[in-house]
Amino acid sequence: MCENSLVKTIHGHHHHHGWDNSIAPVARVAPGTTLELECKDSGNGYFTSDSTVESVRDMPFDKINPVTGPVYVEGAEPGDILKITIDSFRPSGFGWTANIPGFGLLTDQFKDPALALWNYDTSSMAPAMFGKYARVPLKPFAGTIGLALAEPGLHSVVPPRRVGGNLDIRDLNAGSTLYLPVEVAGALLSIGDTHAAQGDGEICGTAIESAMDVTVTLDLIKDTPLAMPRFTTAGPVTRHLDQAGYEVFTGVGPDLMQAARDAVSGAVEWVAREHGMPVEQAYMLCSVCGDLRISEIVDMPNCVVSFYVPKVVFN
Amino acid sequence: MCENSLVKTIHGHHHHHGWDNSIAPVARVAPGTTLELECKDSGNGYFTSDSTVESVRDMPFDKINPVTGPVYVEGAEPGDILKITIDSFRPSGFGWTANIPGFGLLTDQFKDPALALWNYDTSSMAPAMFGKYARVPLKPFAGTIGLALAEPGLHSVVPPRRVGGNLDIRDLNAGSTLYLPVEVAGALLSIGDTHAAQGDGEICGTAIESAMDVTVTLDLIKDTPLAMPRFTTAGPVTRHLDQAGYEVFTGVGPDLMQAARDAVSGAVEWVAREHGMPVEQAYMLCSVCGDLRISEIVDMPNCVVSFYVPKVVFN
Repeated sequence: MCENSLVKTIHGHHHHHGWDNSIAPVARVAPGTTLELECKDSGNGYFTSDSTVESVRDMPFDKINPVTGPVYVEGAEPGDILKITIDSFRPSGFGWTANIPGFGLLTDQFKDPALALWNYDTSSMAPAMFGKYARVPLKPFAGTIGLALAEPGLHSVVPPRRVGGNLDIRDLNAGSTLYLPVEVAGALLSIGDTHAAQGDGEICGTAIESAMDVTVTLDLIKDTPLAMPRFTTAGPVTRHLDQAGYEVFTGVGPDLMQAARDAVSGAVEWVAREHGMPVEQAYMLCSVCGDLRISEIVDMPNCVVSFYVPKVVFN
Repeated sequence: MCENSLVKTIHGHHHHHGWDNSIAPVARVAPGTTLELECKDSGNGYFTSDSTVESVRDMPFDKINPVTGPVYVEGAEPGDILKITIDSFRPSGFGWTANIPGFGLLTDQFKDPALALWNYDTSSMAPAMFGKYARVPLKPFAGTIGLALAEPGLHSVVPPRRVGGNLDIRDLNAGSTLYLPVEVAGALLSIGDTHAAQGDGEICGTAIESAMDVTVTLDLIKDTPLAMPRFTTAGPVTRHLDQAGYEVFTGVGPDLMQAARDAVSGAVEWVAREHGMPVEQAYMLCSVCGDLRISEIVDMPNCVVSFYVPKVVFN
C-alpha cells in the first residue's frame, strides 16, 4: 500500500471511533512522508447551519469523535518516538460550539444545552463573529493527534493519554512539532477533532469545532524513551489574542480543580454581566478564547489558578 | 497621620511577618493616594553576593517573608473592593533564587539546597545572566500584595487567600490593576516578596527574589462583592519571553497536581540534558522563566498540564 506521491491523502471516510490497536491500517508510509488527512469535525458532520439548540439534545453520541486513520509508519516499534511536524491546515469555514449537558468544567452550573454556530472566512482567517457579542481570533489545530495504545481492546477517544489522543493543546498549530511515544508496531497514527479556535483548558468542553484537512510530516526517532507527549512551537503562542491585554479571574485554594472552577466561574459571570450576554453564551465564548494558567503552585496549602479573558475579543 | 504629599513613602523598617488584623497601621491614607513602599526581598536581606549554598541551610526562617505595611485606607469597610493600580517598580539590581528543601513542586526529587545569585542592570533591565547557561528576561512584580483577614490572630504569610497575599502572579507587573475584597475596616494593605522575574507557577518555590520599591495608587470601590482577587493587564503578558517560541512538556492524567509535577519533571530533565547544566540549576532556571498552563481540563478522566520553557533564554 506504500505510495510515492509527494503528499499522500487519507480520505475522511477512512476514520474510526475510539483507539484499538487491532484496527487495520488505512495506509502504510515510510518515515519522511508528508500526509494530508481529511478530518471531520468532532460531531462527524452532524451540525449544520440549520442546527438549533434542540440538535444538541438529539446528538447521536455513538457516531461522534471520528479520527482519520490509522496510518502505519514503517519501522516504528515500541520505544521509538513518532515526530509529527504540523505543516498546515485547510479549514472548512463552518464551525460550532456547544454546551453538552454533563460535559465541561462547570456542568453543575450549566445543565441545559446551548449551541453557537460560526462562519469564518478561510481566505482571510479574520476573527470570527460570535453573534453581536465578540470577535474571536482564529488559530486552527487538531484537538486529537494520537497513536494506538499497547493495551488491547477498544479505548474511548475522549481522554488523552501518554500516546497523545485528545490532547486539545491549542498551541499545536501550524509550525509546531509534536513528539509521541510509540507503543505498538507501526505507531498507528490517527488525527481528528479539528478546532478553528480554542482557549487553554477548553472549559465548556467544546472549541470552535470545525472540519479541516491537516497536513503533517512524519519522522521516526528510534529507541528513545519518552514518558509523555512533548512539543515545540516555532514562535509565540498567544499573539493572536494578547495585544489588548487580559481581564483575569483567580481561584485560590488547596485544590487545583476547584481553583480552576472558581476562576472560570468568576470570569463567565463577569463577561455575561459586563458585556451583556446570556451566561451560557459567555461560557461558550470563554471556552474558545480564554486561557487557564497556574499562577502559583508552591505556596502551600493554597494554589492560584487564573483564567485569562483576552480583551481583544470585545474591541 | 494623613499626609498630603503627592507620593507617600512607607519605609522598609515598617514591615511585619504574617497577617494579623490587630497589627497597628504604619500609615493612614485617603483613597486616591499614591504610595511608594520600600520592599525587602523575601529573605529579608539575608542573602548577599557572598552567600553560598551553605547559607540556604542556615536560613533564619523566623525572619523571612517580611511585608511592608499595613496601610489603613480611610473609608474602607468589609464588602468593599480595594483597587490597586500598580504604577512602577524600582528594583535593586541584586537577586537570589534557591531550592529550599521541603519547599517547591518537586521536593521529593530535590532534597538538597541550591542557590543562584543574580546581578542585573537596573537602567537597561536587560536579561540577567544565569551563570553561563542562560539569559532570563526580567519583568518585576510583587509576589505578595494582600489585605488583613477578618479572622483574628496571626496567619502565615505563605499561602495566598481570597484577600490576596502571596499570590505570586507574574503578570501583576507595572500597568496592571489588582482588585482585592476588603474584610476589615481600613483594608490594611501590605506588600512584599518582590521578584525581578518568575514563571507561572514559581515551580521551585522561589523566583528572582529581589528587593525593590513599589509604587501603587489606591482606590476604593464601595459595597461591591468580590469572591476572589481579579486583575486586568494593560497589554500582552508574555512578550518578554515568547519571541523564539517554547519547548513544552506535558503531564497527562486524572490529577492536575500530579500532571503538573510530571510536566515540570520532564522539562527540568530535558533542560539539564539538552543544555548541559546540573539538574538543580535547570530546576531553578525553569522556576524563573517557565510557565505552567492547563491545556485541557474537560476530557475526563484525564487532564493535560503543560510546562512551557521559553527558547529565548538559550539564544
